[in-house]
Amino acid sequence: MTDFSRYTVSIDYDRRLYKQDVAGSIAHAKMLAKQDIISQDDAAQITQGLKAIEKEIELSSFPWDPALEDLHMNIESRLHQIIGAAAGRLHTARSRNDQVAVDLRLYTKETIKEIAKGLRGVQQALVGLAFRYQTVVMPGYTHLQRAQPVLFPHHMLAYFEMFQRDIGRFQDCYQRTDVMPLGSGALAGVAYQTDREFLAAELGFSRISANSMDAVSDRDFVVEFLAAASVCMMHFSRMSEELILWSTGEFGFIRLSDEFTTGSSIMPQKRNPDFAELARGKTGRVYGDLLGMLTTLKGLPLTYNRDMQEDKEGFFDAADTLSTTLNVFQEMLPGLKLNEERVSSLAGESQMLATDMADYLVAKGMPFREAHGIMRELSRHCDERNISLNDLPVAEYKKLSDLFEQDVYDITAESSAAARDNPGGTAPVRVAAALEEAKRIMEAAPDGF
Amino acid sequence: MTDFSRYTVSIDYDRRLYKQDVAGSIAHAKMLAKQDIISQDDAAQITQGLKAIEKEIELSSFPWDPALEDLHMNIESRLHQIIGAAAGRLHTARSRNDQVAVDLRLYTKETIKEIAKGLRGVQQALVGLAFRYQTVVMPGYTHLQRAQPVLFPHHMLAYFEMFQRDIGRFQDCYQRTDVMPLGSGALAGVAYQTDREFLAAELGFSRISANSMDAVSDRDFVVEFLAAASVCMMHFSRMSEELILWSTGEFGFIRLSDEFTTGSSIMPQKRNPDFAELARGKTGRVYGDLLGMLTTLKGLPLTYNRDMQEDKEGFFDAADTLSTTLNVFQEMLPGLKLNEERVSSLAGESQMLATDMADYLVAKGMPFREAHGIMRELSRHCDERNISLNDLPVAEYKKLSDLFEQDVYDITAESSAAARDNPGGTAPVRVAAALEEAKRIMEAAPDGF
Amino acid sequence: MTDFSRYTVSIDYDRRLYKQDVAGSIAHAKMLAKQDIISQDDAAQITQGLKAIEKEIELSSFPWDPALEDLHMNIESRLHQIIGAAAGRLHTARSRNDQVAVDLRLYTKETIKEIAKGLRGVQQALVGLAFRYQTVVMPGYTHLQRAQPVLFPHHMLAYFEMFQRDIGRFQDCYQRTDVMPLGSGALAGVAYQTDREFLAAELGFSRISANSMDAVSDRDFVVEFLAAASVCMMHFSRMSEELILWSTGEFGFIRLSDEFTTGSSIMPQKRNPDFAELARGKTGRVYGDLLGMLTTLKGLPLTYNRDMQEDKEGFFDAADTLSTTLNVFQEMLPGLKLNEERVSSLAGESQMLATDMADYLVAKGMPFREAHGIMRELSRHCDERNISLNDLPVAEYKKLSDLFEQDVYDITAESSAAARDNPGGTAPVRVAAALEEAKRIMEAAPDGF
Amino acid sequence: MTDFSRYTVSIDYDRRLYKQDVAGSIAHAKMLAKQDIISQDDAAQITQGLKAIEKEIELSSFPWDPALEDLHMNIESRLHQIIGAAAGRLHTARSRNDQVAVDLRLYTKETIKEIAKGLRGVQQALVGLAFRYQTVVMPGYTHLQRAQPVLFPHHMLAYFEMFQRDIGRFQDCYQRTDVMPLGSGALAGVAYQTDREFLAAELGFSRISANSMDAVSDRDFVVEFLAAASVCMMHFSRMSEELILWSTGEFGFIRLSDEFTTGSSIMPQKRNPDFAELARGKTGRVYGDLLGMLTTLKGLPLTYNRDMQEDKEGFFDAADTLSTTLNVFQEMLPGLKLNEERVSSLAGESQMLATDMADYLVAKGMPFREAHGIMRELSRHCDERNISLNDLPVAEYKKLSDLFEQDVYDITAESSAAARDNPGGTAPVRVAAALEEAKRIMEAAPDGF
Repeated sequence: MTDFSRYTVSIDYDRRLYKQDVAGSIAHAKMLAKQDIISQDDAAQITQGLKAIEKEIELSSFPWDPALEDLHMNIESRLHQIIGAAAGRLHTARSRNDQVAVDLRLYTKETIKEIAKGLRGVQQALVGLAFRYQTVVMPGYTHLQRAQPVLFPHHMLAYFEMFQRDIGRFQDCYQRTDVMPLGSGALAGVAYQTDREFLAAELGFSRISANSMDAVSDRDFVVEFLAAASVCMMHFSRMSEELILWSTGEFGFIRLSDEFTTGSSIMPQKRNPDFAELARGKTGRVYGDLLGMLTTLKGLPLTYNRDMQEDKEGFFDAADTLSTTLNVFQEMLPGLKLNEERVSSLAGESQMLATDMADYLVAKGMPFREAHGIMRELSRHCDERNISLNDLPVAEYKKLSDLFEQDVYDITAESSAAARDNPGGTAPVRVAAALEEAKRIMEAAPDGF
Repeated sequence: MTDFSRYTVSIDYDRRLYKQDVAGSIAHAKMLAKQDIISQDDAAQITQGLKAIEKEIELSSFPWDPALEDLHMNIESRLHQIIGAAAGRLHTARSRNDQVAVDLRLYTKETIKEIAKGLRGVQQALVGLAFRYQTVVMPGYTHLQRAQPVLFPHHMLAYFEMFQRDIGRFQDCYQRTDVMPLGSGALAGVAYQTDREFLAAELGFSRISANSMDAVSDRDFVVEFLAAASVCMMHFSRMSEELILWSTGEFGFIRLSDEFTTGSSIMPQKRNPDFAELARGKTGRVYGDLLGMLTTLKGLPLTYNRDMQEDKEGFFDAADTLSTTLNVFQEMLPGLKLNEERVSSLAGESQMLATDMADYLVAKGMPFREAHGIMRELSRHCDERNISLNDLPVAEYKKLSDLFEQDVYDITAESSAAARDNPGGTAPVRVAAALEEAKRIMEAAPDGF
Repeated sequence: MTDFSRYTVSIDYDRRLYKQDVAGSIAHAKMLAKQDIISQDDAAQITQGLKAIEKEIELSSFPWDPALEDLHMNIESRLHQIIGAAAGRLHTARSRNDQVAVDLRLYTKETIKEIAKGLRGVQQALVGLAFRYQTVVMPGYTHLQRAQPVLFPHHMLAYFEMFQRDIGRFQDCYQRTDVMPLGSGALAGVAYQTDREFLAAELGFSRISANSMDAVSDRDFVVEFLAAASVCMMHFSRMSEELILWSTGEFGFIRLSDEFTTGSSIMPQKRNPDFAELARGKTGRVYGDLLGMLTTLKGLPLTYNRDMQEDKEGFFDAADTLSTTLNVFQEMLPGLKLNEERVSSLAGESQMLATDMADYLVAKGMPFREAHGIMRELSRHCDERNISLNDLPVAEYKKLSDLFEQDVYDITAESSAAARDNPGGTAPVRVAAALEEAKRIMEAAPDGF
Repeated sequence: MTDFSRYTVSIDYDRRLYKQDVAGSIAHAKMLAKQDIISQDDAAQITQGLKAIEKEIELSSFPWDPALEDLHMNIESRLHQIIGAAAGRLHTARSRNDQVAVDLRLYTKETIKEIAKGLRGVQQALVGLAFRYQTVVMPGYTHLQRAQPVLFPHHMLAYFEMFQRDIGRFQDCYQRTDVMPLGSGALAGVAYQTDREFLAAELGFSRISANSMDAVSDRDFVVEFLAAASVCMMHFSRMSEELILWSTGEFGFIRLSDEFTTGSSIMPQKRNPDFAELARGKTGRVYGDLLGMLTTLKGLPLTYNRDMQEDKEGFFDAADTLSTTLNVFQEMLPGLKLNEERVSSLAGESQMLATDMADYLVAKGMPFREAHGIMRELSRHCDERNISLNDLPVAEYKKLSDLFEQDVYDITAESSAAARDNPGGTAPVRVAAALEEAKRIMEAAPDGF
């Protein structure tokens, strides 16, 4: 095969759809027989032949031929070899355009279910960590500057929420993927009395497509999958960034298990968080897959154009990347060891309690803006002298406001966290409730569907 | 203001959120008073002051000050000028982080509703065209090669389906946007007994956020909006491509009204389909907005980082672009004149009936693959002699198969279309049903929600 | 190997760099011996061992082991098996960080040269077509509306120019890739008296990197390659769009050879321009590869991070895609048959001569804007009556201006083209000169370098 | 003006090109007169009129009219008002297609020069910091794990190199932008004896375009600019990430001046590195501008299509973003205070010297791989006991190899850095030489050109 003739060949990657293609063809043959378009005997032969082919593929004995370009022609040709003339009747009332659409939709549906399950697994791991370190207070950050104390499980649950939205997006994508396109023919429908609802039922679709031209043109579900995958990878990139930061000598918050760090070919002391780095890095390729598909579809006239063959590789790449990432995090997170002493001690640094001290003044009647101004001044004062707010004698506090009393020293990381006692806040009682809710959500749909 | 200090200024674009900001602050003040965190009197003053500010902004008399950088500080500062010290109490139990989140969510919700309405308008226009030319048969294309005759309304309804999915995506995005973040404070919740459910009810949200750290970090709804907008613009780019093609001298299918074509500064004869070209071109900027936002969020540690200020301009740009595009198409489509004669005559070209002739042989018992081979040979034969299938004498047909009879000439564009009589097919009866269904869908939710 | 451990494995794709890796290691061993860091004997063993490994790989007998993760460890481990302890000395004064950088730069340099050669091949094909149809006049378009007559070779040379700029961009990228990073170690340089200039000379680099931290962090050359490839694919997407349009029944300008069109599984008459469609579609994946790489690099701290392992797959994908596209077009273009009659006849449609008629009035003293207005009116008049300008009697012309005389009918497509007799214009004499210049450029550097 | 008619209006942003448009028109008028296409008197009037218009625009007294849609029509129309009929002759031998191309190229050339100057400014700031802290040793990182000691100026010079490449890319882009398109007319050239070389000389272009169809279709220079800007912003995103990390309490390496940090509306203690965060965040929008433009151009047939109006906003946005970022960093970097004590003390942590200790063994004859293994074991041993390598008694070292002697304790951060004494390495003498070279480069071309 010359180089240029390989341009059109898709068998290297579309063979991945073989199960879906066989299932689609068997359902089609059944329907044709049911509608008396082909004989029961032909249908039986076709079904048997296709099942034999499926087995050959599973056993790697199928004679793939790149000259036949794609999965569909490979299977069709092999079917001819096995069952002879009857094979020719399978293509009645069907086009490669609706065939490839049904294959890809079936595959996407399965992929979404697996991903939802993987997301549940990651959520499980997060909740596991949250329970393990349920009472640990750590510094919370904004702008990567220490901001206010938060509970470690509260931080984990923030990621739980993100992945919960991801599941929602994949479910919505599933609904729009769950549409049966067979019967659309090349573009205009088919000139046979087919039963499309029967096909949908056979193949597990909840409804049939409403317009044949749209059905063979539509790859929205692929783009939507890629968009959901991109947002999800973005979430992993954020978590990875934190795992990487927390693993630095400077932060020293966590230790990942050896299995998920690697050494250096030259520096003997290294324990690099390579898996987290790779997850962060692979975010780029998934964004790229999304953009690639959007670009490919831009400006295409209806209906099918060969450009659309490009709907698979980027999609598979993104699905594989996300799916493996889900596996990695399910395995990696449980092995994370939190340095409780380190994070607790940083959480107790009194600079981070400045907001609580301002709130303390507000509780005594001062408007917040004024209290904020006073604490800003005290913070700067400490900052310059390189001491912490706790080190200031009460007299220094009183210089700026008479409202300060000895009880200002009662403000601690723990009291700060406990004070944030609102739905969604970091108070231990709220976090405990949130953890219960998380468990409830997971138990209600263990596989995310 | 020096150039570098302008780097952080967002007032040029975030002022667009003023209504939402005022509404959020009024609700917050009410809640604070209800919870006895501030006095009823303070709340009343704050509310009055904010309403005055809203009016000033609407009347363009508000003294915007770029030195105050953003919308929130401009309003807060002005409130101080108007009502004095009480203004300072408004910021109790609130941070700019949850404030900006609530503003943007309110704005996004409104924007989505407007877009859904605009999409309905475009659907209306498509259905209008479909009814106007309900019986016209035109060539259907795959690979931009004439493929099979289709009804013009069938083609219009393909676009109806695309926009219907777009509405669905925007609705799903709406659900995930419809979450009230106030009360999350800077990141950890707030140290006051606030009533978040009250705030949600006041502001028309259906639920409150579950985790404060997530609530101030989350911009998924913006990305999801941009992804839905990108798919929608992709649909418009496809429709635009077709309008442009159909307007060429070579196709000659349609004539857009003068209002939506432009002349040339140099070539007197030109009628360029500039609006369609611009819609196709603007697809790029919306994709760019999506990728910009995804890139910005990649790898950000929790919770709020200033990078996230970049969540607005691209979002506004995409929303404006899509919204104007919707307006353009609602106006432009009704003025489209179809050259019925031209499309009908092309639809009747017998080459396009080759599939039907193959089906004709299948109906007489030949396997489809064989029939396809015969018609391929006949097509090539005609192609080389530059004649059409209809021009062949029946004897020529019979050379290739005895199954051909005189009735092969009964196959026409109309019979071809009528034969595709399955749900989703292009048969007139099916198209009529689809049109009724489209009307039903639109009537059930005239504004798309 | 568990699924998660495969996350870090790159051997499936980085084995492609084996030649470069072996070459780099041999040069490194030579240098170490020259500098007395290792013995001559060790260097000789290493060199022999590496050459044996190279041969094994070429003969597909090399025992690839995914557990060793990457190319470098596979080769290093095999070298140990072959030559024993001396293998351990090869990694002296070198890190995987500078090793992978040198491999990728060597590979990129070679790839660029191949691509430049392929671009020359496409230019050759364009020039071939231009000579074959040197005198054919066709319609030129703006906004896909017929605008002014142009020579077919002029149109071909527009693409010649685009590809000429592409070659320039790849050459510039080559200059910035042509920098030898070995000796940078992990990030800080190496603690041995190496000779980096010797390494550069051995490996054919024109200079050495100036800063070790930058040298192991820098993937600009990959991004730059991807940007150049994206622009180049954009050019092919434009040419493909035209080939697709020109192949439609409606335009009917060209016929691609059978080898580069495909039929349909259902519609017997089809000749689809699949290769051009695929080239247009594949533009998306190359854009995606560019965005992916840019995203991956965004926000990475210095120096090497594992995210950067993602520098290869997208790069290889883009290089392969572009390279195959170049092959396809080199083969496909020469088989293009222009329908000279069709394009000439359309070029002669007098509407397209309206500009020339305006120029005719200008030549007789009328300001251009006024002449343009008159011709606009005449064009509309013809448009409405569905006639062409040539069909108007001279009296009609004179109604709008007395300057019109009988010689207005002398304006033809040919006279129009001939009148554009400026450098870069479409006059036959200018096009002939441009063709000579194109030949000169190609002869001066037949391989584009 | 209705909403839809605004779709085509570009005057809000293309007015930015007014200087270029006026200059282009004056040159064109001069050329027309020189060639006797218009009279000297007309040319003089046109020139005077245009100069008056330029002044009006500068004084903000120009009567912009959105109904005239774009800059060119606004100026043309105003010229009519000022000088009457002669204005009509300016558009002779010119089209808006070549006019807009020349404007944008002139503007791009100027923009590139400004950006190169800004990049030089940032390099100057980096070199300034490098000299200020020339001898400070700090930890160098790979995978964000401490790796080997490096000199602070070495780290700064890594960024110098990146920006040096950026300058190179912008220069290359400049070369391909520096091509004069006037005389290409709408697409085919013009039917007048113009002097294109004269125009090039007048407008400061170094050459004229070679093909009129390409000249009005080509926006490669915009894409190339955006690609160069994207790489440059990627560099700033990396530097910003480091500034943000270094500003954390955990790293504590630097303090940015107050001017470049901001406080919090709620947390009084905050000093957030907002400018660095914004630079990192704005990287997304520039990537988005690049991909938007690439998408817009994908699949456009020749020559000009209205989609190309989208070439400006994204370009201006990217240019402004980059240009302001350059200003910010030029101002911000000099105010950076390095915590010398902190970085030096971390650099001295003996874990980071493990590579040097392995090299120590190699110097005594051990193969590197073996030495690496021994140091790996010692590092883990220390890691587990939470001590540093320096704390180990020599006896412990000897347990693993007899080659260890008392002098292993002589290995320090300083000795480690000094040992990397190769071109590009971090040894003080090499860094000093690199600093001199950096100065030389800057002095040779102070404005980057």
